[in-house]
Amino acid sequence: MSAVKGARTKRMPRAVREQQMMDAAVRTFGQLGYRAASMDEIAELAGVSKPLVYLYLNSKEELFTACIRREAQRLTEAVQAAIQPGLTADRQMWAGLEAFFRHTQENPDGWSVLHRQARTHGEPFAAEVARMREEIAAFVTVLIGAAARQGVPPAPGATGSNRSAELADRDVEGLAQALVGAAESLAGWANEAGGISAKEAAGLLMNFAWTGLGGLMHGERWSPR
Amino acid sequence: MSAVKGARTKRMPRAVREQQMMDAAVRTFGQLGYRAASMDEIAELAGVSKPLVYLYLNSKEELFTACIRREAQRLTEAVQAAIQPGLTADRQMWAGLEAFFRHTQENPDGWSVLHRQARTHGEPFAAEVARMREEIAAFVTVLIGAAARQGVPPAPGATGSNRSAELADRDVEGLAQALVGAAESLAGWANEAGGISAKEAAGLLMNFAWTGLGGLMHGERWSPR
Repeated sequence: MSAVKGARTKRMPRAVREQQMMDAAVRTFGQLGYRAASMDEIAELAGVSKPLVYLYLNSKEELFTACIRREAQRLTEAVQAAIQPGLTADRQMWAGLEAFFRHTQENPDGWSVLHRQARTHGEPFAAEVARMREEIAAFVTVLIGAAARQGVPPAPGATGSNRSAELADRDVEGLAQALVGAAESLAGWANEAGGISAKEAAGLLMNFAWTGLGGLMHGERWSPR
Repeated sequence: MSAVKGARTKRMPRAVREQQMMDAAVRTFGQLGYRAASMDEIAELAGVSKPLVYLYLNSKEELFTACIRREAQRLTEAVQAAIQPGLTADRQMWAGLEAFFRHTQENPDGWSVLHRQARTHGEPFAAEVARMREEIAAFVTVLIGAAARQGVPPAPGATGSNRSAELADRDVEGLAQALVGAAESLAGWANEAGGISAKEAAGLLMNFAWTGLGGLMHGERWSPR
């Protein structure tokens, strides 16, 4: 029996087995937290021996880092894949937000690793998430910048100067930071509150942010007077 | 000479001396990070002996916790003090955001302690910040809920159903989470990018968020079609 099992183990490519270990690790880290998660539990959940986990992924720290990187890449790819170049600015934003909330909802453990665990357990892990965040913010900055330059046609009945917007690069960057912050805050809340669909969360953020962003692109400005 | 110095030390009330130690600690933690900051440096900056710091604040962990609590309270109070009940919803939001960005800009070390350091160095510290965040989100939820119930009069030329809004409680809570996330993200970015005034940051976020929130309160809804 053990020879057969050994043979089976051999036949499974290393990359596949590594992904299985990381699946088990993301689930364990996401649900128990980084500190409380043990390599024993991860190995058991992955159906492999603990030495094999160490052989493939070296240490709990490196395993956690590998999990952060994988989950960050998957999230970034899910958002980028949803945004088609031909769409109008609001449809792009809607598609990106829906993909973001769907992905974080379907992968609550992965999102917990990125949003809670990685940030809470020291600089090297937090820096991994900060890198992902910068990448997404840079991507959103390009989208908002492109939309602003396209000059969305004025909305019917729009107030303000009605010119196509002339937003400073720094403003566009700040708006992207605001949108990313709003989205991650809302995703954390939606996953904890429960019972909120990805479409509802994306719709809520569109209603919060789009008319604001959309208004800006039509040249509208809010003013204290 | 040392007798005179001792007498002076005695005359300074404990509460005052504790605040001086915490001023030095916030500056050191904020600028060097929690790990790198040493009790020696903090004592030196506060102009006291290291044993006195330990006598008053027990340990680096407790000193850090005291700093988080003080900075959280100061920030929360600054925002709450700025919001006057008689103002319209958009003026309240503007006043709150301006106070938030002014406070985080004038206290960059305190903000770094709350936004970066406390979140990155383990659950007990992160939980302190989470508590402050919940308090602010609850406060913002009340404000948005009150504004929505007041029924802001329809904007001139507003599209949509133009009814005063009927936002579900859960939506109001989600919107508050989005606003808090956007504000903290923007404050982090503004402090790192530099050269952005509190007024500019608050104006950017009003332009991002208000027309969206304001539109919602006029019964406007964004829709994918």
